[in-house]
Amino acid sequence: MKKIKIPDTMTVIVLNSYSGADALSIEQRPIPKPGKNEVLVKVAFAPINPSDLATLTGYYGLKNPTPIIPGGECSGEVVSAGPGAIASYFLGKRVACGGWGKGGGVWSEYVVKSVKGGVLPLNKSLSLEQGAMSIINPLTASAFIDISKKEEHKAIALTAAASSLSKMVNSLAKSEGIQIVNIVRRDAQVDLLKAQGAEIVLNSNGVGFEQQLYDACHETNTHIAFDAVAGQLTNQLLKAMPPNSKVIVYSALSKQTVQASPDLLIFENKRIDSFWLGPWMSQQNVVKMMRLWKRSQKQIPSHLKSEIRKIYPMQEVKEAIRNYESQMTGGKILLRMS
Amino acid sequence: MKKIKIPDTMTVIVLNSYSGADALSIEQRPIPKPGKNEVLVKVAFAPINPSDLATLTGYYGLKNPTPIIPGGECSGEVVSAGPGAIASYFLGKRVACGGWGKGGGVWSEYVVKSVKGGVLPLNKSLSLEQGAMSIINPLTASAFIDISKKEEHKAIALTAAASSLSKMVNSLAKSEGIQIVNIVRRDAQVDLLKAQGAEIVLNSNGVGFEQQLYDACHETNTHIAFDAVAGQLTNQLLKAMPPNSKVIVYSALSKQTVQASPDLLIFENKRIDSFWLGPWMSQQNVVKMMRLWKRSQKQIPSHLKSEIRKIYPMQEVKEAIRNYESQMTGGKILLRMS
Repeated sequence: MKKIKIPDTMTVIVLNSYSGADALSIEQRPIPKPGKNEVLVKVAFAPINPSDLATLTGYYGLKNPTPIIPGGECSGEVVSAGPGAIASYFLGKRVACGGWGKGGGVWSEYVVKSVKGGVLPLNKSLSLEQGAMSIINPLTASAFIDISKKEEHKAIALTAAASSLSKMVNSLAKSEGIQIVNIVRRDAQVDLLKAQGAEIVLNSNGVGFEQQLYDACHETNTHIAFDAVAGQLTNQLLKAMPPNSKVIVYSALSKQTVQASPDLLIFENKRIDSFWLGPWMSQQNVVKMMRLWKRSQKQIPSHLKSEIRKIYPMQEVKEAIRNYESQMTGGKILLRMS
Repeated sequence: MKKIKIPDTMTVIVLNSYSGADALSIEQRPIPKPGKNEVLVKVAFAPINPSDLATLTGYYGLKNPTPIIPGGECSGEVVSAGPGAIASYFLGKRVACGGWGKGGGVWSEYVVKSVKGGVLPLNKSLSLEQGAMSIINPLTASAFIDISKKEEHKAIALTAAASSLSKMVNSLAKSEGIQIVNIVRRDAQVDLLKAQGAEIVLNSNGVGFEQQLYDACHETNTHIAFDAVAGQLTNQLLKAMPPNSKVIVYSALSKQTVQASPDLLIFENKRIDSFWLGPWMSQQNVVKMMRLWKRSQKQIPSHLKSEIRKIYPMQEVKEAIRNYESQMTGGKILLRMS
């Protein structure tokens, strides 16, 4: 094992209030020491995800008092270990880390993480760039397919279908023989998805959308929708699907309140449910979760890969966010953390 | 068995379009003959329920082309039986009938019903007046308690809490040791319910309602709400209850679309579900359903009794509906059908 010199201080990205990217600053902090069953990770790359944007504006579900260090996931290398056999095992290994729980966000040169779920080993074949994006989207896509298969769905409706996540869901679904009713909000995205091989792509802002969605959901027998848009679109999904269907809301890109006609709920036995990756993961047993992790690591090159549009040094985080927000479906933006 | 003379024609109440009580007319129709496993019931009394009002305006889930005979439940006596041992068994018996399925609504002097679920034997101790109201509200109240007990809830939130149904839910809940957070829409109803022994009664139009509801749901650990109002109140319920709660929408007295904040759904794992008596009953097995029926028949005098405000002859159905609509929480209005 190579000896890595750890300095005393590190550069971190700090969110000073829940008022967006303008409230970010670059600061120096002492490097924390790993305790028992903890490791210190030298962070390599961190993507900007929609959940990070939600965090910056206080829309995310975890909202500690500011100042906080944001950042939902990263890749890195374990450079120091606290007491404990598992911590020692991780020493020198390349890992992916989630940005919550003990240690908080990962937009930081170094992070301390618990070995009990805080660090996940990266496949040797994966770059640190892809590894940085191997938790949130790949596991969410795997979870959607897992949920759909468990309930024996042969078709899924998907909003925000041009997102990185939705592309993964499409790819996994194809390999499982599950049809997707893709819903986007712009004509250009319809063309893009069709060019990528998607069979059904509807524009929710197009003329005749509700009828098209109804027809598509009935032709494919779609009884489950994963909805990242919320607002009126949730009700349009409820309306379009046959009786005994449900919409699983997992984000609210429209920033609108979810709408639902009571008659659809009561007389057509439709439901509104939700999905959040963290709690879903903690509900799975450890063996299943590790199997899912290993499978998704293997599937990253084939089904769960994220396109990278640009990599910025962490000091340029504000410009990186502006770039991401200007075109959220045109490939991921990464931060180089060290 | 006494011999009852059955005439050739009967008086029926007809709804000619889904435009409310003004679209009702009184007509004469031939009396239908019971087929195999069917009986002819001479109808005694039928209540006006909120679901009947919804039917008249086309808001109910079953919506056959008009003209239709409305009416969701009734009491009566079996006066003729088609072929089949069970049909013969019912001859001369007092029964309650549901108003849907084969035979349609029951606002009619006579109705033909299948013995497979269409007629339920009335307890000897019950009057035909109480018997006429022994399906919809008593079984819905029993179902709410059944659902709550199965999921081990020790407290329930209830909107439209001054309704006949909610009074039954309160009474049953008390006997089961389940607390109720009652929500009404007028101060007068708060006083009324408290006078009847309800401990927690909140006015959703009162000052500070949201905080009161939050406090009440947290103090009682309420994780389930049965909501007959919908609209913004559904979201207020979601907001007030602790994480991992659900609202079961079963009516929409507000005639508003259900609202739900996506952050409550996603980050607090809250859900919106629904309840409709007919499908719920058909999901239960026959043995359980008969046990529930027998128990609820026994509980009508103690817990599941409906106050009667006035009885109108069926010919005065329009006036009866006007009276009911003028004060829906002040006792039931019955129609005398023959």
